[in-house]
Amino acid sequence: MSIDLTEETITGAVQQTFDESKDDRLREIFVSLVQHLHDFAREVRLTGDEWFTAVNFLERVGHVSSPTRQEFVLLSDILGLSVLVDQINHGNGSATDSTLLGPFYVEGRPRVENGADISGGVAGMPLFFGGTVVDPEGRPVAGADVDTWHSDGDGFYDVQQADKLDGEPAMRGLLATDDNGRFSFRSIVPRYYPVPTDGPCGEIIRAAGRSPMRPEHIHFWFHAQGYEPLVTMLFRGDDPYLERDAVFGAKRSLVADFVQHEAGEDAPDGTVMAEPFQTVEWIFVLEPGRR
Amino acid sequence: MSIDLTEETITGAVQQTFDESKDDRLREIFVSLVQHLHDFAREVRLTGDEWFTAVNFLERVGHVSSPTRQEFVLLSDILGLSVLVDQINHGNGSATDSTLLGPFYVEGRPRVENGADISGGVAGMPLFFGGTVVDPEGRPVAGADVDTWHSDGDGFYDVQQADKLDGEPAMRGLLATDDNGRFSFRSIVPRYYPVPTDGPCGEIIRAAGRSPMRPEHIHFWFHAQGYEPLVTMLFRGDDPYLERDAVFGAKRSLVADFVQHEAGEDAPDGTVMAEPFQTVEWIFVLEPGRR
Repeated sequence: MSIDLTEETITGAVQQTFDESKDDRLREIFVSLVQHLHDFAREVRLTGDEWFTAVNFLERVGHVSSPTRQEFVLLSDILGLSVLVDQINHGNGSATDSTLLGPFYVEGRPRVENGADISGGVAGMPLFFGGTVVDPEGRPVAGADVDTWHSDGDGFYDVQQADKLDGEPAMRGLLATDDNGRFSFRSIVPRYYPVPTDGPCGEIIRAAGRSPMRPEHIHFWFHAQGYEPLVTMLFRGDDPYLERDAVFGAKRSLVADFVQHEAGEDAPDGTVMAEPFQTVEWIFVLEPGRR
Repeated sequence: MSIDLTEETITGAVQQTFDESKDDRLREIFVSLVQHLHDFAREVRLTGDEWFTAVNFLERVGHVSSPTRQEFVLLSDILGLSVLVDQINHGNGSATDSTLLGPFYVEGRPRVENGADISGGVAGMPLFFGGTVVDPEGRPVAGADVDTWHSDGDGFYDVQQADKLDGEPAMRGLLATDDNGRFSFRSIVPRYYPVPTDGPCGEIIRAAGRSPMRPEHIHFWFHAQGYEPLVTMLFRGDDPYLERDAVFGAKRSLVADFVQHEAGEDAPDGTVMAEPFQTVEWIFVLEPGRR
């Protein structure tokens, strides 16, 4: 019976409508969601105007969202939900720490060979990345899919400058590890940057007087048969924003050494470089599959 | 400092980023929101896949939302948030009970004269509605704006049959009360109906095995200088869904008498009707303005 509901009786009445669900997990989730959503509204004494502002806000988040702009992911990121969900699901084990996906992963990325230049012609200081993917015993994981993506030297991803790049992907690619678990690519050195503040999430950041800055990082997403997927990033130690990441994702365990090289030195691929460049090496440890 | 955050420390770290906000109310709302959002995720041990499903769900809610389809309002409605917010803000006073706005109010509605036929030519049993708007002492409130909107005899609003109606508004209008606080219109008798289940909210309703049905009702939204706005509906007492409204909005205090008349009787406007019709009379009491 759900008529004449009050501030006190509404929560139970809504929860009861999930009683008939054949999906136990769905019921568990919605019973908890309704409880916390209602507790929140009661706690702050949410006004009608505030409710309307929230509805309008979520609608606008939806309208700017697209396959290349994940504003709901960003909302989850700036509210710390993304890192929380990651922490809930990936405790500290022997594997490389995971962290959040961020809003800039896109499915339409090219598959590339190891050693390839994935910069897409975007100018910047050359970066040579070499990675090894292993299991917790240090044995190489061959044939792992390795997604990587990062910003340019001004802090912008390809999808943020689609006009300039004619919509072509740049600074992202899908690689595979070889028999030694190795993968490598050439690109350009990324930079710290603000999360996009020209959409609805920017309103929260400005209203809170928060910094929108993320420390410099390179994204990785690993998929390998028999292992848990791993979503992670590498950061640099001297980054001014390392300890105040706008989306709470930075971890000291993921700080890599971005080694500076001068013009005239050899790159890892043997090229004699005419300009300064950086190299990064990292060993990624995957957790054996739980199912 | 927000680095190396854990499932336990993330909540405080996010809340702290609102410390510098100049807007005390914004801080209060977000500190509570983050607490309850995180408590929910921890309580159900939200998985990455479930998080992704939620992000994708909200994105789809945003994409189907438009000025004529308020899917986020519907989401709030089916989770009982809309009724809760209404109850928080409108205690039981001497005024007419309020209830939820619903997803079918649209701004592009015509201003019409009292007595006008607002059916927009949609076929159905004629309905003559007469209302009086008064203050708690029973004194008429003149010049009040009265928004009204309702479904047709099959349970569909005009915006759900825009093709058939060439996008023209029907069964809705903006009236004004006369010096006696009176307003009146002619339209057609509405019917109980399911909330729209062809969008993302329908997935929740089906997965939960819930009824999507709303009891028959006519919406009203009053605005008058010096009074609190009033959002309400009138229901009919013999409705099969009165006690199990899918959006929890029904109230016994808002049950009106839909009086049945036979062909040959006089309508309230003096017309001798050639077909059966219904009449409804109601007195709406507005609460004096609080600010």
